[in-house]
Amino acid sequence: MIKQRLFTPGPTDVPPEVLIEMAKPIFHHRTQRFKDMFAAVNEGLKKLFVTSNDVLTIAGSGTAGMEAAIACAVPRDKKVLVANGGKFGERWVKVAKVYGLNVDEVKSEWGTAITPAQVREKLATGQYGAVVVVHSETSTATACDLAGIGAEVAKTDALLLADCITSAGALPLKVDEWGVDIAGTGSQKALMLPPGLANVAVSAKAWKVIENLKAPCFYLDLKAYRKTLAKQDVPYTPAVTLIRGMQVALDMIHAIGIEKVWARTALLAKATREAMKALGMTVFSKQPSDSVTGIVYPEGVDDKKFRNKVLRDKWGSSVAGGQDEMEGKMFRVSHMGYTDPLDTLGLVAAVEYGMTDCGVKVPVGKGVARAAEILKDWN
Amino acid sequence: MIKQRLFTPGPTDVPPEVLIEMAKPIFHHRTQRFKDMFAAVNEGLKKLFVTSNDVLTIAGSGTAGMEAAIACAVPRDKKVLVANGGKFGERWVKVAKVYGLNVDEVKSEWGTAITPAQVREKLATGQYGAVVVVHSETSTATACDLAGIGAEVAKTDALLLADCITSAGALPLKVDEWGVDIAGTGSQKALMLPPGLANVAVSAKAWKVIENLKAPCFYLDLKAYRKTLAKQDVPYTPAVTLIRGMQVALDMIHAIGIEKVWARTALLAKATREAMKALGMTVFSKQPSDSVTGIVYPEGVDDKKFRNKVLRDKWGSSVAGGQDEMEGKMFRVSHMGYTDPLDTLGLVAAVEYGMTDCGVKVPVGKGVARAAEILKDWN
Repeated sequence: MIKQRLFTPGPTDVPPEVLIEMAKPIFHHRTQRFKDMFAAVNEGLKKLFVTSNDVLTIAGSGTAGMEAAIACAVPRDKKVLVANGGKFGERWVKVAKVYGLNVDEVKSEWGTAITPAQVREKLATGQYGAVVVVHSETSTATACDLAGIGAEVAKTDALLLADCITSAGALPLKVDEWGVDIAGTGSQKALMLPPGLANVAVSAKAWKVIENLKAPCFYLDLKAYRKTLAKQDVPYTPAVTLIRGMQVALDMIHAIGIEKVWARTALLAKATREAMKALGMTVFSKQPSDSVTGIVYPEGVDDKKFRNKVLRDKWGSSVAGGQDEMEGKMFRVSHMGYTDPLDTLGLVAAVEYGMTDCGVKVPVGKGVARAAEILKDWN
Repeated sequence: MIKQRLFTPGPTDVPPEVLIEMAKPIFHHRTQRFKDMFAAVNEGLKKLFVTSNDVLTIAGSGTAGMEAAIACAVPRDKKVLVANGGKFGERWVKVAKVYGLNVDEVKSEWGTAITPAQVREKLATGQYGAVVVVHSETSTATACDLAGIGAEVAKTDALLLADCITSAGALPLKVDEWGVDIAGTGSQKALMLPPGLANVAVSAKAWKVIENLKAPCFYLDLKAYRKTLAKQDVPYTPAVTLIRGMQVALDMIHAIGIEKVWARTALLAKATREAMKALGMTVFSKQPSDSVTGIVYPEGVDDKKFRNKVLRDKWGSSVAGGQDEMEGKMFRVSHMGYTDPLDTLGLVAAVEYGMTDCGVKVPVGKGVARAAEILKDWN
């Protein structure tokens, strides 16, 4: 009777309403029924990204969506600047190199984010055709100032390609206002869906580059998706079930209102961070993302025991560990999607119990009390 | 109360057992639970392809799987021969060209298949590093002699890359015995799943080429999937829900036995073809595939009225139309996956009613009687 709750920064829990929709009999995608559904989903996606740009849907992981952006939207006569402050920034460097692009990396220490000033300085050289940034770097639980970076890039001919995989639907994100030329996301994050879909919002400025470039790939050629989108269609067989779930999930999000969803996510994140501090623990990031919180383990905690034996198996709460250089050194808690104040309070309690079981003295109840105090502002 | 049945050659109906499994709460993919499930799925996939080769799982459509094969497994110092006798053969030519490969096409008239003799003759020139064939060309409902082609390719250093999207789990397919170096499929066909997964079975001969080649893509780089497969893992977030459904679907298939599934599919196809002939209608293909039957419209039938108004809306049976040069000239009926003799009889009756409603005189009942006679051999 212990309920399983996913606090992992993807996959996140899928609402029963979505699961039930996806369990209904399949239907064919070359039908008016699909077109009508896809049209509704496409409207919902625009509201999610706060954009009037085309939002494309690809059957694949979030990585596939970002690869499509990098492969198709970097002008070949210019360099591409990739901000690398974590595992995902690192991945986009690799993708750019696979396509033989001329890559410059701006590295930032894990737990810190690239700044608009750094981007401005680089762009002043006039060498860059595109800038790739990670809005919310999931591996370090760190968010950058995407609005500020967008303002710098918008002054130039360069395109801004943003990994919004753990930001879209969680952090404030205004694609048009901020000048984000391509924003990519994945279904298993704030969209509250199983993994298997990537979305990319593409600006008119980006389409100009894409249309002038011979795509170096086929399935991920954005042009093919644009061509069919006008007819509410897709170039290759779509993941119909997931798109169907997406319609329900988007309806749930927009019934609340996207700005309110952002505010709620921020409140859950704040409650978690403050509760951890009240327990004497340390938040890893210097610019914490509100979609995921990274918490540094106190000396001597066994990561596997804490996360698997205590939190998951005893208290029904799955959290993620650290990655690469942070493996075994921190745990990460998602605030995206289908999670709420009572879940968050429960998670704080589970952390208190987990720390105690792992031999760390924390004042049990103090974290929960602090979180409760903050969460009363939920609405 | 009219039941909707999909006789489209993808998507095919998904069994309720699979839908229910996919409706259960999501779980994380970086867990022992996922590894155990994936291990079972991987065993089931090997039995589906009758192979001891690695079978990889990619979140994407069948096209993504075939693109991975073509992009990663054609040696760059040789030409690639692509058999093009329909819409999918045509697509693989396009994919090969996107990667700048030196492509030769062997075209065959729609409704006919490339022969082992044609392949032998081409290979005798020593120019080819790989041969791409479509085992069952869905657009023309035509199957080639993959065993015979495999025997020719196996005598050379060339690789055989086969689109088995509507053959795996439907037509006899023995990957190891026939020497198929890469066999690709998609989830929404004989596997009875929603779209969103591609599988590729890769031989040791193919791995030698792949490992020596710098992949020109990232998400579809087969090497990354091989590396993680050894640990029952995947390189990028997998479509967990679909893999979970796949476990149930594979269990259903293997509980019957793969050879019996092939025989049953063949019987449904034969019953459909013979019933159509009994009605005085013409099967389009000269080498008909047992996974899908293409039937030529008699003069004067309105495709949209026949398929949508009568078959689908009145009788609850969705069939596919013709594509490209065959648009409006034929309809196609799938025999793959979750369909059985009584469904098939019903479809034949619906065709009889549909033809009548579209102004074509057919002897109503004669097709059904012929199908019933053949289907008594079901076991």
